[in-house]
Amino acid sequence: MKLIGYFRSSAAFRVRIALNLKGIAVEHAFRHLRKGEQRAPEYAALNPQKLVPALVLDTGEVLTQSMAILEYLDETHPEPPLLPADPVGRARVRALALIPTADIHPIQNLRVMAYLRQKYDQSEESTFAWSRHWIETGFEAYEAMVANDPRTGLYSHGDRPTMADLCLVPQVFNAARFKVDMSRFPTLQRIHAACLKLPAFDAAQPSKQPDAEP
Amino acid sequence: MKLIGYFRSSAAFRVRIALNLKGIAVEHAFRHLRKGEQRAPEYAALNPQKLVPALVLDTGEVLTQSMAILEYLDETHPEPPLLPADPVGRARVRALALIPTADIHPIQNLRVMAYLRQKYDQSEESTFAWSRHWIETGFEAYEAMVANDPRTGLYSHGDRPTMADLCLVPQVFNAARFKVDMSRFPTLQRIHAACLKLPAFDAAQPSKQPDAEP
Repeated sequence: MKLIGYFRSSAAFRVRIALNLKGIAVEHAFRHLRKGEQRAPEYAALNPQKLVPALVLDTGEVLTQSMAILEYLDETHPEPPLLPADPVGRARVRALALIPTADIHPIQNLRVMAYLRQKYDQSEESTFAWSRHWIETGFEAYEAMVANDPRTGLYSHGDRPTMADLCLVPQVFNAARFKVDMSRFPTLQRIHAACLKLPAFDAAQPSKQPDAEP
Repeated sequence: MKLIGYFRSSAAFRVRIALNLKGIAVEHAFRHLRKGEQRAPEYAALNPQKLVPALVLDTGEVLTQSMAILEYLDETHPEPPLLPADPVGRARVRALALIPTADIHPIQNLRVMAYLRQKYDQSEESTFAWSRHWIETGFEAYEAMVANDPRTGLYSHGDRPTMADLCLVPQVFNAARFKVDMSRFPTLQRIHAACLKLPAFDAAQPSKQPDAEP
């Protein structure tokens, strides 16, 4: 398998953690998002969304959308599981995962911020405030959902990492770039710190990727 | 079970189709999004994201995030299935479903359009152009992914409706409100028309809900 990613992409970061947790070795390739390499015709032919990541299987089939890739990896490599066994628990983990995946990151990713600058003539400062707003809105909900729920453990759901943590941690890295005050989200801070003690999370972080830039 | 929704919410619409397909009878309750009823404290206590839908189980547990709810319904009521059996096919269906769910709708929903009007002083016309841009960007990718793939059938994946169709159809309804020219997306038009011939999709459409407004 080959993962096509970018060191700073939150979506690629989620998949890197899953591959590490499950001990799946893949070839890594990169598209430099700030240089627009994801819009090159040969990449658009693989992923018409022109977004990373894409996972190219040994059969040549191409999987896109990080959440779909996480589910695929969990179905084909069940250990350790990224979801709990009970349907209500699975729904809780997926709902938490979807807060960053659907309701934070897509609203404040590179292409949206570029649109705000170009079409609405917004300053970098203004687009940073936009990003902070959507991150904080999502984190307030995530914090409320984990802070007083007995199902929360060392991680977002129980005492082993799940899909929720795989999606939360990259968003916390992203939040640091936009100077979000994480002290407002003490449970997220605690879970983030616990995750980064695990080699699978630590090795997946942006600064440790081959294509990382300062 | 009780589904808390809003007639025009794409996310609630997805869940209504799934309930109809599977023949699951639920109580329906509504929060009027344009009046801000989803921000009332009693609802925020159920769903800290202050978004619809929420599915309240008979045990009192509350499920949020439409994609997590679709997966839950499929796990607990397997017939008819919303996903194919093979992992690569499941990944394709989920990736298609995530185009509207993660990469179109969250960028152009009510709260984002309100932010554009209030903080960036954008006109209604400008926010409509914004919505059209993200719908068209997502639909271009969806069309490219289904147009020439032999796995596409009468519906997005094969000849029975899947999670992908449940997420596509509400987005096509939404696109009509923003005057998106659907003739650019002939495969999506064809799939949308095929879905609406099914009573489960037809009965779930916004204008047929008890809280519908003209």
